[in-house]
Amino acid sequence: MNEKIIDGKHCSKQIRENLKKEISKLPSIPELVDIQIGNDEASTIYINNKKKAAESVGIKFHHVHFEDNIDKQIIIDKIKELNNDIKITGILLQLPIPKEYDEQELINYIDPNKDVDGLTKINYGKLFLGQDGLVSCTPLGVIKLLEAYNVDLENKNVVIIGRSNLVGKPLIELLLRKNANISICHSKTKNLGEHTKNADILIVAVGHENLINKDMIKNNVVIIDIGINRLNGKIVGDVDFNSVIDKVKLITPVPGGVGPMTVTMLLNNVVKSYKLTNKMDV
Amino acid sequence: MNEKIIDGKHCSKQIRENLKKEISKLPSIPELVDIQIGNDEASTIYINNKKKAAESVGIKFHHVHFEDNIDKQIIIDKIKELNNDIKITGILLQLPIPKEYDEQELINYIDPNKDVDGLTKINYGKLFLGQDGLVSCTPLGVIKLLEAYNVDLENKNVVIIGRSNLVGKPLIELLLRKNANISICHSKTKNLGEHTKNADILIVAVGHENLINKDMIKNNVVIIDIGINRLNGKIVGDVDFNSVIDKVKLITPVPGGVGPMTVTMLLNNVVKSYKLTNKMDV
Repeated sequence: MNEKIIDGKHCSKQIRENLKKEISKLPSIPELVDIQIGNDEASTIYINNKKKAAESVGIKFHHVHFEDNIDKQIIIDKIKELNNDIKITGILLQLPIPKEYDEQELINYIDPNKDVDGLTKINYGKLFLGQDGLVSCTPLGVIKLLEAYNVDLENKNVVIIGRSNLVGKPLIELLLRKNANISICHSKTKNLGEHTKNADILIVAVGHENLINKDMIKNNVVIIDIGINRLNGKIVGDVDFNSVIDKVKLITPVPGGVGPMTVTMLLNNVVKSYKLTNKMDV
Repeated sequence: MNEKIIDGKHCSKQIRENLKKEISKLPSIPELVDIQIGNDEASTIYINNKKKAAESVGIKFHHVHFEDNIDKQIIIDKIKELNNDIKITGILLQLPIPKEYDEQELINYIDPNKDVDGLTKINYGKLFLGQDGLVSCTPLGVIKLLEAYNVDLENKNVVIIGRSNLVGKPLIELLLRKNANISICHSKTKNLGEHTKNADILIVAVGHENLINKDMIKNNVVIIDIGINRLNGKIVGDVDFNSVIDKVKLITPVPGGVGPMTVTMLLNNVVKSYKLTNKMDV
């Protein structure tokens, strides 16, 4: 494989093997529940991927599916039931959910110790306060990849494009802990290239194909591409891979970069939530 | 007064007059409790300032003082008692506290609806998730000053120096809501000037006198100086005021800039906490 390409599949495989060993030694089987509302097609694919990944390391996977237009209270009651079920150690709400529901309201019913997406207000608060808690999977996966490839972050200029609660914002905190200098750009940023040209490490999480090309980066940049876009029947990221490849030091491909790490970090969080709910050391 | 100088005292006075009117119409008197542990000299001065400010707008102020080495459980019991006291609508732990106590552990006992410093994990989580809650006073004061002086923030380069939980980090979120492009520097950032020269708005919250001089800024920058340092018997900020004054568009003086606004935003938060604890619209 091109030595510039960050191999998320390989990195992921190693972590999953370790998780599998760790799980086999736990006193009982961790169980993960993925709650889906409605029939978003991409969600159904993601859920199947999570199920396969979970089962491959010895986690029992439950898919709870509600039809669109279900009464909100039924979802809340289900979450409460799962919170009280000692066998269930991880709960997540598959996003996006239909617009008539308040995503954050529902998420906040999840027991913070079972909140494997790290999106309850308590885990989100702990994250930014610098405390230990459950942290959302994609940002964790990005950090693990950078660590695996020995990318030095201290006093490096990291430019993050995208400010979502799930990806961009947690990355700010996680990268501050690594003593990076951080810049955040977003949909209202004009002249994006002026910002991205300063990046030693460029992290793109927008969902817009070909957003970044070779004229917007400096030589030897490390690029982490979190975008997932469908273009002419293919899955591509936010970065024009062929345009930038000659200039970069390292880059994540799409698919095969951050994607596998996101699912792996979910498995990692299920083990952590197992320990938290069973009051074991994490 | 020099038209380049952001007059925090004046801005503060106007807001306090409005708060005084609003408080006079509330069904009862809001009461604020400031908990001090130990005898930090600066803290005692701040507490007296807060008391004066609170009483000037009609808020009843209580100073609860524990000696250093008090048993942690006594503090926790006091916080719980205050949480249950319906007359008390705002509670804050005066920082810094002696090192033998876990600051965040104690703060998390405060009822989030009475947490006027916005530092409980629940309010901190709500802040970064973009939800309404109580937000710490200095960052709020900075935003109010920028609004009062019509400083346009959308797509502007804001450089924040300092990443504390109390000031730097909440500013990231509040300025993202204004669609600013944000860069964060800190104690591990070398070549600070390379970053600060890009700033349209420069916010400094470090606690180091003369950190910023005219060679580190571009013309027409807006500077918000949050530092409070003692130098040769005088209070000064983090910015070498006399060095930069000719180049800036606007600047906050120290004292008389952000300081008065911090106390004013505390009063504002007490009114908000009153409404939250009394289940009124905020």
